[in-house]
Amino acid sequence: MTIGDFQKLIEEIYFERDSKRGRDRTFLWFVEEVGELSRALARPRDDDGQNLREEFADVLAWLSTLASIEGVSLEDVAREKYGGGCPKCGHTPCAC
Amino acid sequence: MTIGDFQKLIEEIYFERDSKRGRDRTFLWFVEEVGELSRALARPRDDDGQNLREEFADVLAWLSTLASIEGVSLEDVAREKYGGGCPKCGHTPCAC
Repeated sequence: MTIGDFQKLIEEIYFERDSKRGRDRTFLWFVEEVGELSRALARPRDDDGQNLREEFADVLAWLSTLASIEGVSLEDVAREKYGGGCPKCGHTPCAC
Repeated sequence: MTIGDFQKLIEEIYFERDSKRGRDRTFLWFVEEVGELSRALARPRDDDGQNLREEFADVLAWLSTLASIEGVSLEDVAREKYGGGCPKCGHTPCAC
């Protein structure tokens, strides 16, 4: 699945509601998911890592929705910034 | 670019250093990038949105590196959780 396809999928599921909520409040929800990822990383796992996996998906989904509200293509910016290696030194692996 | 290709690209650039730093300290760096995204969202833009675009890319890159350290495929978890529509109600658009 491309980054763009995932962003589009999240738009199809959530964009109407998320855009109505607005950018600032949607950022609060995004940060809540970052907190849930932190919690899943920090605690012992009793579910074979399933909750941790889902928290990674949720952070990606909320990041995608924020980008959509701002009219930003995550795939374009990912390729632009990192497609040529480390943005600072230009090397792969990074030699900074 | 697929989500998996981007995660692999970030691994090629940064995995050796990031895995040595370890998960917990890498999470601190990830959260710093979340803060920079917040700052870019909140402030007036005098650069045609270029900084904001780069902050989205950086958060995605650090999320990818964290997933790699944990052995999680962002593409797999994204598809698993959201490929069938809203994980809670199963609808697209979400009808929760």
